[in-house]
Amino acid sequence: MNAGANWIADRCSSFDSSGIRKVFELAAKMKNPINLSIGQPDFDVPEPVKKACIDAIQQGKNAYSLTQGIAPLREKLQQRVDKRFGHSDRSIFVTSGTSGGLVLTMLSLVNPGDEVILFDPYFVMYPPLVKLVGGVPVIIDTYPDFRIDLKKVEAAITPRTKLIVLNSPGNPTGVVASEAEVKALAQLAAEKQIALVSDEIYSEFCYTPSLPTPADYNPNTIVIDGFSKSHAMTGWRLGFVHGPSAVIQTMIKLQQYSFVCAPQPVQWAGLAAMDVDMTGYRESYRAKRDRLINGIKDLYEIAIPEGAFYVFPKAPWGTGSEFVQRAIENELLIIPGNIFSQHDSHFRISYAAADETIDRGIEVLRRIAKK
Amino acid sequence: MNAGANWIADRCSSFDSSGIRKVFELAAKMKNPINLSIGQPDFDVPEPVKKACIDAIQQGKNAYSLTQGIAPLREKLQQRVDKRFGHSDRSIFVTSGTSGGLVLTMLSLVNPGDEVILFDPYFVMYPPLVKLVGGVPVIIDTYPDFRIDLKKVEAAITPRTKLIVLNSPGNPTGVVASEAEVKALAQLAAEKQIALVSDEIYSEFCYTPSLPTPADYNPNTIVIDGFSKSHAMTGWRLGFVHGPSAVIQTMIKLQQYSFVCAPQPVQWAGLAAMDVDMTGYRESYRAKRDRLINGIKDLYEIAIPEGAFYVFPKAPWGTGSEFVQRAIENELLIIPGNIFSQHDSHFRISYAAADETIDRGIEVLRRIAKK
Repeated sequence: MNAGANWIADRCSSFDSSGIRKVFELAAKMKNPINLSIGQPDFDVPEPVKKACIDAIQQGKNAYSLTQGIAPLREKLQQRVDKRFGHSDRSIFVTSGTSGGLVLTMLSLVNPGDEVILFDPYFVMYPPLVKLVGGVPVIIDTYPDFRIDLKKVEAAITPRTKLIVLNSPGNPTGVVASEAEVKALAQLAAEKQIALVSDEIYSEFCYTPSLPTPADYNPNTIVIDGFSKSHAMTGWRLGFVHGPSAVIQTMIKLQQYSFVCAPQPVQWAGLAAMDVDMTGYRESYRAKRDRLINGIKDLYEIAIPEGAFYVFPKAPWGTGSEFVQRAIENELLIIPGNIFSQHDSHFRISYAAADETIDRGIEVLRRIAKK
Repeated sequence: MNAGANWIADRCSSFDSSGIRKVFELAAKMKNPINLSIGQPDFDVPEPVKKACIDAIQQGKNAYSLTQGIAPLREKLQQRVDKRFGHSDRSIFVTSGTSGGLVLTMLSLVNPGDEVILFDPYFVMYPPLVKLVGGVPVIIDTYPDFRIDLKKVEAAITPRTKLIVLNSPGNPTGVVASEAEVKALAQLAAEKQIALVSDEIYSEFCYTPSLPTPADYNPNTIVIDGFSKSHAMTGWRLGFVHGPSAVIQTMIKLQQYSFVCAPQPVQWAGLAAMDVDMTGYRESYRAKRDRLINGIKDLYEIAIPEGAFYVFPKAPWGTGSEFVQRAIENELLIIPGNIFSQHDSHFRISYAAADETIDRGIEVLRRIAKK
């Protein structure tokens, strides 16, 4: 009697309810979980950014904006990008979160049958989004150190390769690709004339002196970034994309028929956010990373993360899923690595949490490290 | 030298920058245009709704919400829908505007090669969205009275017909489908087991005693609605969809990988919006409709609109485009009908404007009615 069930399009079969959601559902049933599973900052939107959003609402800036975003935000972002890269053909537009930018990238560039190179572990959205537009994910393994082996990338390239997606700092590993890795990948993409997408949503949470970006070595790199993670605005849906004008113009055209525009008051808040110094937040997150790693590093195998707010250790026994099951039995919420990977050997800890929650997590992790 | 231009996916070629945008660009160059081209209310978000949004921001409700929307809004919408229809299998979820609902509907239901029946004139987004997912728009002509001829629909149905899209009150005509039209279409879709989508975004602006909806006659009707037009929240991106659970669950799954969630503070505002009486606004718009129609009906052929805030008269001479060109030369911004149609014989006037702007528009329309 499932009315409508036979109407569902074939493309939907490649989507599964994310495993992260299943963990959240488990969490909802627990009384006082130690929640180290959350993919967003534990602080609230900074006050000046809230105020800018509220001012915009009160001033009646509530209607559609231009598809590409309000002019002041675009101009300020464009200035920053021009100053940083000095590319003659780099345009920018405002998206509904980085997810919006990712969707539009896939729709704009990937034909059915085109291959898209992804590095494993990957952000959960990448493989289904590639399949959504009829593309074929080509997965390159980066275990155990989560570094990019250029030889593997060269070997994976075929005449159907359309896109390479880099995510640094990465979710779920927190690993930051080095200058050398980024440069080699950027040059390879340029040489092969393959589009290179750099998802830099965690750029604000980078604990190296600066974040290496392939756009420094390949002027046609498409960079996706946003305010969601940096300013705790995940529920506000504000991101941006910059890249070659022809690509950006196409994405704007598609945005007109899909996302329409990012929420207007939030765009004014983004403008204010650009002037808020986030150093204190970054330093606080760096300290949380150190707190967590120092608390468990003698018992776990960890590729030291230099960005984002994740640690991705190897399960000390059993599969990642088995280990996470044990953690959850001990009130600790973490995410099994097979959500982000073809392997089921690791697990993701988010340290975007209060120090006392991190400490409680460390206590459990130390207790269950031995089977 | 167009870097990246050769990367663009084939599906993008079916998108043209909307003609409406071209009119807006013309408008930007004019000093004091009589703007009757705008597809959104001329009033601001009602104060209690603004306040609810601001309260949510200040209370820190700024992170991701559940994919399907915050529970209080979903529950309140579900109660309203249950009370109205009493269907056993009707679920609801919260979208990023009605556009978000439309995109997810197409992605969820339309396979490449599937046919989607649209009525001409149509909302500009429909044909490109159908093509975006590989579907084939099948256009049914409704000129000159913009009524649905069931025989034409029957004749258009083939084994590949997947979807019929109804938009009442309609953009650009403002015409409201009658109880009899809606019932016949709903029953035909049920009999043929074709999905029926009812885009009711203008439901709040309906000047008949009640809005006939196919969901009254076909429990599997998928209804798309939202707050954008009703509460002047076009820039806030808040809509909702209700329909058979299997369809809604699929759309939620796809939303998780695309729109993620509607902006959270805006969802709390939507909850407040449901308690705001919009009768005054509706009566004001009904008066504007009468003002405009009474001002031009002796000179123009008009199918009387009973909803939305549009009038779609026949050009009194030349094509719709030629006539609109003349209007723009006279500082009057209106939209040529071929943006919404395979015909170039009509033009769209929006009366979502101040009365004095409407009066200035009437003056020009009377002046240019004769070539």
